Amino acid sequence: MSEYIIGIDVGGTNMRGILLDGEKILQSYTLSTPKNDLDKFYSFLKALIEPLVEKSKQNKKKITGIGLSVAGMHDFNKGKIIKSPNITYLNEEDICANVEKRLNFPVKFDNDANCFLRAEIKLGAGVKFKNAFGMTLGTGIGGAWWLNNKIYQGSHGGAGEVGHTLLYNSQIEEIEETYQRLTSNNPAQLAEQAYRGEDIAEKTFKQIGENLGIACANIVNLIDPEVIIIGGSAVKSSDIFLPVTKKKMRENIADPLSKNTKIIKAKLGDNAGAIGAALLYT
Amino acid sequence: MSEYIIGIDVGGTNMRGILLDGEKILQSYTLSTPKNDLDKFYSFLKALIEPLVEKSKQNKKKITGIGLSVAGMHDFNKGKIIKSPNITYLNEEDICANVEKRLNFPVKFDNDANCFLRAEIKLGAGVKFKNAFGMTLGTGIGGAWWLNNKIYQGSHGGAGEVGHTLLYNSQIEEIEETYQRLTSNNPAQLAEQAYRGEDIAEKTFKQIGENLGIACANIVNLIDPEVIIIGGSAVKSSDIFLPVTKKKMRENIADPLSKNTKIIKAKLGDNAGAIGAALLYT
Repeated sequence: MSEYIIGIDVGGTNMRGILLDGEKILQSYTLSTPKNDLDKFYSFLKALIEPLVEKSKQNKKKITGIGLSVAGMHDFNKGKIIKSPNITYLNEEDICANVEKRLNFPVKFDNDANCFLRAEIKLGAGVKFKNAFGMTLGTGIGGAWWLNNKIYQGSHGGAGEVGHTLLYNSQIEEIEETYQRLTSNNPAQLAEQAYRGEDIAEKTFKQIGENLGIACANIVNLIDPEVIIIGGSAVKSSDIFLPVTKKKMRENIADPLSKNTKIIKAKLGDNAGAIGAALLYT
Repeated sequence: MSEYIIGIDVGGTNMRGILLDGEKILQSYTLSTPKNDLDKFYSFLKALIEPLVEKSKQNKKKITGIGLSVAGMHDFNKGKIIKSPNITYLNEEDICANVEKRLNFPVKFDNDANCFLRAEIKLGAGVKFKNAFGMTLGTGIGGAWWLNNKIYQGSHGGAGEVGHTLLYNSQIEEIEETYQRLTSNNPAQLAEQAYRGEDIAEKTFKQIGENLGIACANIVNLIDPEVIIIGGSAVKSSDIFLPVTKKKMRENIADPLSKNTKIIKAKLGDNAGAIGAALLYT
């Protein structure tokens, strides 16, 4: 008798919709995210959601609601996007109210890093942890923190903005730049080269690993979590840089006991955002 | 019928002891902290505490216990100091057990930044806040965080180590160095000069203000508190640098709503550490 939930991950490049039955994804679809066109965005969202609704009708199941994962800064009290760096036409958009009006289901939303971490904590790499920081390494760098059985949002909803932390020392920005250079240069090939010990690729990964390690140490020195879960598209090549990251992190943690903080890899891959959005209803 | 509490602030230069009756300091003493001599340290501690015990006997009041504020990293489960950067003979010291044995009162301890913030939250500048970060600017830079009605200690007791955050970008270290240069150069005179607009003093305070602002923005971007309370000896000259700090902080906060985070000055002055240590019993 349990109901289904729809989770949508609205990314800068793709929108992915899933139909979640408890812990199981029954169906999923992906569409490209429209550029510069809000009406088209809502049409695509509808096109993504309709077959999921259809499927739940076939199975005679109700849909509890729609969860949306959207990158950016949000006003959680008003259900409104404040600033979406990758999809600028969503800036100031009253997204929850507008999706509710068009689709007649309850709608909740959250940012992409929070959805990622919620999914990993409830169904992925973080199930056994109570105090976990999540970092997504992809086109941008996102951060989120799980504390006391929920996402810690801060006093104004702005916590976990690790991509903006350390703005002046540019460590995070360096990681972002390096990673973008990597992905534009075919990361599979670079990883392959790094495995074979080729010079430039190895140096690049070493640089990512070190900068990420310092960023992680800064997080540990301030909030001291049990674990940092690394997700996003960079996880695929993380075997190459994570050993350096762990070493650099430990070297830069002040408190001897906090050096025990673990870094682990996310488990849910590209579905984490949509799963975490659906799990807003659990 | 309420009892008294003894609070001791063990600093690198001085040890201060107070006798606390509810919210009121009945008596206080200060002694120089012994250099390189653990036995002398315990003798001085006893000398500091004995007149406070005497006073409570005169008033026919019981003493609930002794609270100690000690700078450094601690193992709170074991009641043991791990590392005390300014008083190295206390490294690895089982301080709670040893003071209990010598003085026959219950003993609790905490680090100096935590004691400072607890005092300011309960009796000082932070009484109306629920989510407050505290920074002490003195010989070193300390940090502590008040969340959910208590000091947030982190998973391994190492949270709030803001003096070690941003190790590589050296902002905090720059503040520490500049501040140490200032204090060794007669800060009253420098503040006086800055007020009169003299060049070097003004530049130095501007530099402190800007670096502190960036450090505060990094804290806000990660944990998004309602307020940052600035304490420590630098508070005396903070009118000169805090306006720059506030401006720089707002410029570097990512989330528009989080720009509302306030920076305020501590109220309890040099007594904050000893008061916060005593308040370990409330």
